[in-house]
Amino acid sequence: MKKANKKINAAIIVIGNEILSGRTQDTNVSFLAKWLNELGVRLSEVRIIQDNERTIINTVKELKNSHKYIFTTGGIGPTHDDITSKSIAKAFNMSYGFHKEAYRILEKYYKPGEFNDGRKKMAKMPQGASLIYNPASGAPGFIVKNVFCLPGVPSILKSMVYGLSNKIIGGKKILSKTISVRTVESEIAKSLAGIQNKFKDVEIGSYPFFRLGKIGVSIVIRSTSKKQIDYCHKQIVSFLKKKEISIIER
Amino acid sequence: MKKANKKINAAIIVIGNEILSGRTQDTNVSFLAKWLNELGVRLSEVRIIQDNERTIINTVKELKNSHKYIFTTGGIGPTHDDITSKSIAKAFNMSYGFHKEAYRILEKYYKPGEFNDGRKKMAKMPQGASLIYNPASGAPGFIVKNVFCLPGVPSILKSMVYGLSNKIIGGKKILSKTISVRTVESEIAKSLAGIQNKFKDVEIGSYPFFRLGKIGVSIVIRSTSKKQIDYCHKQIVSFLKKKEISIIER
Repeated sequence: MKKANKKINAAIIVIGNEILSGRTQDTNVSFLAKWLNELGVRLSEVRIIQDNERTIINTVKELKNSHKYIFTTGGIGPTHDDITSKSIAKAFNMSYGFHKEAYRILEKYYKPGEFNDGRKKMAKMPQGASLIYNPASGAPGFIVKNVFCLPGVPSILKSMVYGLSNKIIGGKKILSKTISVRTVESEIAKSLAGIQNKFKDVEIGSYPFFRLGKIGVSIVIRSTSKKQIDYCHKQIVSFLKKKEISIIER
Repeated sequence: MKKANKKINAAIIVIGNEILSGRTQDTNVSFLAKWLNELGVRLSEVRIIQDNERTIINTVKELKNSHKYIFTTGGIGPTHDDITSKSIAKAFNMSYGFHKEAYRILEKYYKPGEFNDGRKKMAKMPQGASLIYNPASGAPGFIVKNVFCLPGVPSILKSMVYGLSNKIIGGKKILSKTISVRTVESEIAKSLAGIQNKFKDVEIGSYPFFRLGKIGVSIVIRSTSKKQIDYCHKQIVSFLKKKEISIIER
């Protein structure tokens, strides 16, 4: 089934002035991160960049060789500020024009007479791209080499992503276990560091939280090995009990 | 007061595995973006990177020369995975050790006997850094050259940022006006592109939305010139009326 490659990584390029201006809160990154995790792919970097052709081209060129998968979000709609498709074509030195299947899909999707120039633009892609179907609103995304181009609207992106899972060959799934405790980070810092040093294949994160007016810390243990997580978890719980720190959740 | 430099830009480096794993939804970027906008600083890039010393150093080195201001979020707490301060010191070839004032602040903040090693770690910084005070939880952030290091917890970050406004010299404030209409993007794509071509100092963005089961498009006009925005706004409203597109909000 899936290959057990050790570190299969991905990067996301969020293309959108609306995110950089603070007008829109991005939620696609956390959605894609969780989906990739499930597939055994580690999201190792995200870039949020401007709707600028040169920037898109340079970013894609820089990241495509260091990551197994690249996902772009945004900029594949019908308006003048949607320049992702053209920029991707340039990044790969491919010609840019109507994709026959995408054209047919859109022609069928719209009522006769409603397939106008703006909508036709959404059928323009790097020549030779393969399509990512869009059950929500017709206009497909596309794949060029290891770059997957998705729209920015979260509900449409979600509708398209699940159909992609069979195109992603992940490694071992990254598992995690969380222990939430009623304490402050500095109380557990030393013991946690000691445990982290003993477990090289486990990543221990410590995240303070404020919930319902009370403070606490979530200790997150991540690894591809359930055995290692369990062993590490046991040691953490043991020192928490010794220190009489109250465990809210584990 | 503020210099009217044309394009004063900033980048944010989000340091945090918890964002890349999808466990935590980042909200600091949109908060900082809006705050910078108010100060006349354009956020031109965001990178979300792993808690990895080499990655932090390389990212800071790469961005610090191409941006007037760099903000980092996360990784300045007391635990083993908090490695931002040390990494920034290395990025600037500065020594890393106790910051006298930060040490005094923290020593005073905690009750006698509670200033433990974890807490002391939060007083360690690149030597010569200046402090960013923290009204919420004591532990200060710091500034090295054009790099501002802030914590990852949103409520603490917010408490610290407002005290920073006088350290940021922005350009002209970026203004915006939004017209929300009951249509789809492809209906307005051509006319919008025509208007965009006429206004070089105005950035017109088009963002589809789905609210309460109804679709629409927000047209956002951004510029440092109110006059240009108003003129552009007038032309957009005029073509919308001509096309009998219903305007929800303008």
